[in-house]
Amino acid sequence: MALALAEQAAAEGEVPVGAVVVKDGAVVGRGRNRRELDKNALAHAEIEAIDEACRTLGGWRLSGCDLYVTLEPCPMCAGGIINARIDNVYYGADDPKAGSCGSLVSLFDLPYNHKPTCTGGVLGEQASEQLKRFFGELREKRKIRERKDETDEETDL
Amino acid sequence: MALALAEQAAAEGEVPVGAVVVKDGAVVGRGRNRRELDKNALAHAEIEAIDEACRTLGGWRLSGCDLYVTLEPCPMCAGGIINARIDNVYYGADDPKAGSCGSLVSLFDLPYNHKPTCTGGVLGEQASEQLKRFFGELREKRKIRERKDETDEETDL
Repeated sequence: MALALAEQAAAEGEVPVGAVVVKDGAVVGRGRNRRELDKNALAHAEIEAIDEACRTLGGWRLSGCDLYVTLEPCPMCAGGIINARIDNVYYGADDPKAGSCGSLVSLFDLPYNHKPTCTGGVLGEQASEQLKRFFGELREKRKIRERKDETDEETDL
Repeated sequence: MALALAEQAAAEGEVPVGAVVVKDGAVVGRGRNRRELDKNALAHAEIEAIDEACRTLGGWRLSGCDLYVTLEPCPMCAGGIINARIDNVYYGADDPKAGSCGSLVSLFDLPYNHKPTCTGGVLGEQASEQLKRFFGELREKRKIRERKDETDEETDL
């Protein structure tokens, strides 16, 4: 489900990341990256999913909840997961640039007042492929645009 | 201004934390802790201030902006500050329990793709006093409630 949410993000030109919060087998929150559409630095998939879960459950403590996300959480999202007291985190692809659940730092291992468990690499290949495809297509689009600009310039001359 | 926003939070029973985002000398975002009122783990002062600043400025990049906050940012807020590309952070009181700009970890010193500068202890005594007063009053209220409960029980007997 998180991979499908990420695919929706990609279809709208956003880096494909999707997240789902689950409690007792039921989905209580869903999210996908919307940074460009919302023009908002906070609009990450996990934040949207946690926000919806708080509203669904009517409180800020998401004890008993698990979060599934296609990409290793950044420090903001890992911090949000700690603040919301989420029990377990399962993520797909590692993020060597901003990942804060093992890559740059392991925030869940520091002595905050809550320590979620964390498992990486869950459907990791699918998640990595999805991201690679998105960035590959982005590069292709840029090349086509640059070629078009060059042609326009030549026509202008 | 951040201290005054924190005072508003305290008056509504929230832990007093206030934050302001400033660009070119103008306030572009304001926030205060609303976790209990909003029943939302994400409702920290800095998040509200960054959210408002993104809307005010019409984009997710808050380059050229400074953030002032009465309490050392937690990992979620420090991560949000990194994600929003805020230039400089000034905070009041240290937070030994969740502070992530020096106390538990220095997120701004890790190799993320953006590194804000950070200055702690700005109006630090006022910010600490505000927090101490809030928690002192909270303890007093609890004691009075417990005493009332005991009296009610004695009356019941």
